[in-house]
Amino acid sequence: MAFQTLPGFREFYPEELLRRNYLFRLWRQAALSFGFSEYDAPVLEALDLYKAKSGEEIEGQLFSFTDKGGRAVTLRPEMTPTVCRLVGAKASALKRPIKWFSIGEFYRYERMQRGRGRCFFQFNADIFGEPGVEGESELIGLLIQCLCGFGLSEADFFVRLSDRNLWFDYLAALGLDDARTRALLTAVDRYEKQGEAAFKAYTEAFGELDAGLRARVLEFAAVKSLAALEAILAPLANERLNARLDEWRRLLGNLDAMGLARFVEVDLGVVRGLAYYTGFVFEAFDRKGELRAIAGGGRYDDLFSKLGYAAMPAVGFAIGDMTFALLLEQRGLMPPLISVPDVYCVTGGEAERRAALGTIQALRAAGLRVEYALRTQAFGKQFRAATDSGARHVLIFGSEELARGMVKLRNLSTRSEEDVPVGEILERLTQQ
Amino acid sequence: MAFQTLPGFREFYPEELLRRNYLFRLWRQAALSFGFSEYDAPVLEALDLYKAKSGEEIEGQLFSFTDKGGRAVTLRPEMTPTVCRLVGAKASALKRPIKWFSIGEFYRYERMQRGRGRCFFQFNADIFGEPGVEGESELIGLLIQCLCGFGLSEADFFVRLSDRNLWFDYLAALGLDDARTRALLTAVDRYEKQGEAAFKAYTEAFGELDAGLRARVLEFAAVKSLAALEAILAPLANERLNARLDEWRRLLGNLDAMGLARFVEVDLGVVRGLAYYTGFVFEAFDRKGELRAIAGGGRYDDLFSKLGYAAMPAVGFAIGDMTFALLLEQRGLMPPLISVPDVYCVTGGEAERRAALGTIQALRAAGLRVEYALRTQAFGKQFRAATDSGARHVLIFGSEELARGMVKLRNLSTRSEEDVPVGEILERLTQQ
Repeated sequence: MAFQTLPGFREFYPEELLRRNYLFRLWRQAALSFGFSEYDAPVLEALDLYKAKSGEEIEGQLFSFTDKGGRAVTLRPEMTPTVCRLVGAKASALKRPIKWFSIGEFYRYERMQRGRGRCFFQFNADIFGEPGVEGESELIGLLIQCLCGFGLSEADFFVRLSDRNLWFDYLAALGLDDARTRALLTAVDRYEKQGEAAFKAYTEAFGELDAGLRARVLEFAAVKSLAALEAILAPLANERLNARLDEWRRLLGNLDAMGLARFVEVDLGVVRGLAYYTGFVFEAFDRKGELRAIAGGGRYDDLFSKLGYAAMPAVGFAIGDMTFALLLEQRGLMPPLISVPDVYCVTGGEAERRAALGTIQALRAAGLRVEYALRTQAFGKQFRAATDSGARHVLIFGSEELARGMVKLRNLSTRSEEDVPVGEILERLTQQ
Repeated sequence: MAFQTLPGFREFYPEELLRRNYLFRLWRQAALSFGFSEYDAPVLEALDLYKAKSGEEIEGQLFSFTDKGGRAVTLRPEMTPTVCRLVGAKASALKRPIKWFSIGEFYRYERMQRGRGRCFFQFNADIFGEPGVEGESELIGLLIQCLCGFGLSEADFFVRLSDRNLWFDYLAALGLDDARTRALLTAVDRYEKQGEAAFKAYTEAFGELDAGLRARVLEFAAVKSLAALEAILAPLANERLNARLDEWRRLLGNLDAMGLARFVEVDLGVVRGLAYYTGFVFEAFDRKGELRAIAGGGRYDDLFSKLGYAAMPAVGFAIGDMTFALLLEQRGLMPPLISVPDVYCVTGGEAERRAALGTIQALRAAGLRVEYALRTQAFGKQFRAATDSGARHVLIFGSEELARGMVKLRNLSTRSEEDVPVGEILERLTQQ
C-alpha cells in the first residue's frame, strides 16, 4: 500500500536537500556577482504560451490539464516563455540591459528513462535589450563561473560555441531555401548521435541529399576554429557573412580578454534542436564526453515578437541540476555536506533541563545552532549525542554548577573546559 | 492579447523576489538555529493522499487532474500529508526526534477574494517521534523566533494556545458523544467570526442546543488562563483530566523557562478547523486583530496511522507568506531591499573596456558584485550609472592609467581616489 512519489518526481530528504541547496547557493552567488537580479514566476501557466513558442505538438510532452475554471493550463516545462511574458509586460519600465536569473523547477511528461525524470531544476540566466555580442560574452562568462565556482576547471568541461545565423547564411549561399535549411539543421543536430540516420527526415521530405551538398554540410559542421571558419567562408564572401565574421571576432576577443579562451571551442557541429535560436548558440559539456549537455543557450531575438510583444533582443542559457550534480560527483567535487550544531547542551535532570531552556532560546535567537535532548536522558547518552553531532561546544547544565550560577563550557576540539556564569554564556559563544 | 499570469497566481519581479527571499532567509536561519533539517518534496502528488487525510470533498478545492498515464494527481494544497509520507517511508532509519522544516509553494483552487490567491508559500516545521509537550514547546519557541527574527515583538503578535484533547474530554464529561462533540467544535471554531450562526450546522443535525449545555460550551471557549482552566475543570475532576492539566502546566512551564510567556495566551476559543489535530493547538495572531492568522499548528498523533503508516507522534505548524509579509509592512519592518554592486567599472573606450574584462571576471570569480556598461558609453553616463547603482567603489579604466599599468580606484563614500596597479586590484578590493 503506502503512498508513493509519482513516477519521475523527486523527494528531497535532508541529506539530498543539502546537496541541492549547495548547487543553488553557488549558482545564485555567481549570478549576483555578475549583477543579475533574481525573479520567479508561477509553476502553472496557460498552455497557449508554450504552443505559441513551440507549436501544437508540444502538448504531448506537458503536464497539461483543464482547470476547474475551464482554462487549458500546464505545469511549466521551461522558463523562457514565462520570462519573456514578464519582461514583455513591463518592457518600457525596466532599465536595460535587463539581466535576470532564476532557479526553478520544471515538468515534462516524458517517457521514463535512466537519468531523466519528469521534473528537474534549472538555473536560467538571460540578458534582454542587448543586441550586441557583449550579451553573449557576459552570459558565457557567467556560465563558466557557475561551473568554476564548484572547483571545475577547463580540464573538466568546455563550452562549444556555434552560430545558427551563420548556418542559415551559409546554406542560403549554397542555394537552399528556408524549409530545406531547417530540415538540414535538424539533421546536423542529430548527426553526432545518430550518424547517417540523422538525414532520414530530410530525405523523406526532400529526396536524396546531393552528395556534394552533403559533403559541404558535414564540412561546415566539422569547423572547429575561427581560422577554419574564415577559410570555409572565404569563397562565399559577401557583406553579410563578413559582418557576421566580425561579430565572431569580437565575441571571441571578449572571451579571450576575460581570460576564458581556454574554456571555449568553436564548434559549428552544435546547432541546438530548439528552432527559436537566432544567432550564437552554446553548450557546455564534460571533457570526457560521458554526460549529456551540462548547460545550453543562445540568442533568441525573435521570440518576443512571436509571443506578441514588442521586439526585444534576448540571449540566455540554462543549467539543469541533474547532469550538473552527476558531474560534480564524478569529479569528487561534491563536498560532504552535514549540518553541525554550534553548541550541544547537556542537562543533569529535569530541573536543570528547564533551567537550560532560557539560555538555549537566547543562543538560538542570536543565530547559534543549538541542540539538546528534548526529554531528560542519562548524562552518558547526552555526551555521546553531543560528540556524534560534531558540535564544537558543549554546555553542561549540572545542579552543582547551577547552584553557583555557573554552566560548564567544554570545547570539544581543544578539550578545554571552564565554568562560565549563566549570564555571560551568550557573549562568550558569540565572540568565539 | 498578451499572455497573463493565471488568476490567483503570482509572479515575482526582482524587487518582489528580494522581499520573498528576505522572509525565506530569516525563517531558514531560525529553523537551523533550532536544529531543524530542511527537506523538500514534489509539488504534484497522488490525489488519494489528500482524500485519505481530509475526505473526498477536498477535491473541490484542489488543482487536480488526470495525468497522461491515467493517474489522479493534484498540485499539493499543503505539506503535512507529504511530509508524513516521507517520514513514514523511512521511519525506522530516521533518528528521533525527527525535526524537519521546509519552505514550499502550495496550490488551492479557491474562489478568488482579496488577499487570498490560489498559490502561497508556507514555512512548515514538524517534530516526529516526540510524544511529550517538549515537542510543542520546541515548536512554539521556533514559531516565536520566526517572527522575532524580523523585529516583531510581543506588542505585535501573540500565540493563542488551546487543546482539542481537552475539549473532547470536557464535552465527554458533559455526556456528549463523538459526533455531537465534533459538530460543536466546528461551531466553536466559527463562533468568533459568525456568532450565533456558527451553531447552524449543529442544530440542523442534532436539533436545538440545550441552553445549559450551550452556556457551558461558550464558558469553556472563553477560558483565557491556566487558573480559569483549573477552576472550570475542578468539578469534573478525573484521572484523565488531571493528567492533562499536568501536561498543560509542563508546557506553560517550559515556555516560561524559555522566556516566552509574554507571547503566549491560553485561549480555549481556538480549536482549529482541521479535524486531524489530536492535542495542543496554537495560532499566532497580530495584536491589533486586523489580519488573518499568521501561523497555526498543533499535534496530530493519529495521521500516520490514518495514512497507513506505523503510528508516529507528530506536532507541527505552518506560517503563510502573504499575511506575514502584510504584518511586516504594516509594522514598518520590511526593510528596503536593494541589490547593490560592490564595484562599478567605468571604461574610457572600446580598448579600455576590453582591457577591463579580465579584471571584471576575476573580481566576480572572487565573489564581488561587479557592474559595468556592456557597451561603450560616454564617461559621464557611466559615472551617473555608477553613482545611481549605490556601488561603494568605482574602478576607472582610463587609457592614460592603463598605459602605466594602473587603474584608478575611487571610493564613493570617502570620495578618496588613488591609482592601483592592475595586478593588485583584486587583493585591494577583497581586503576591504
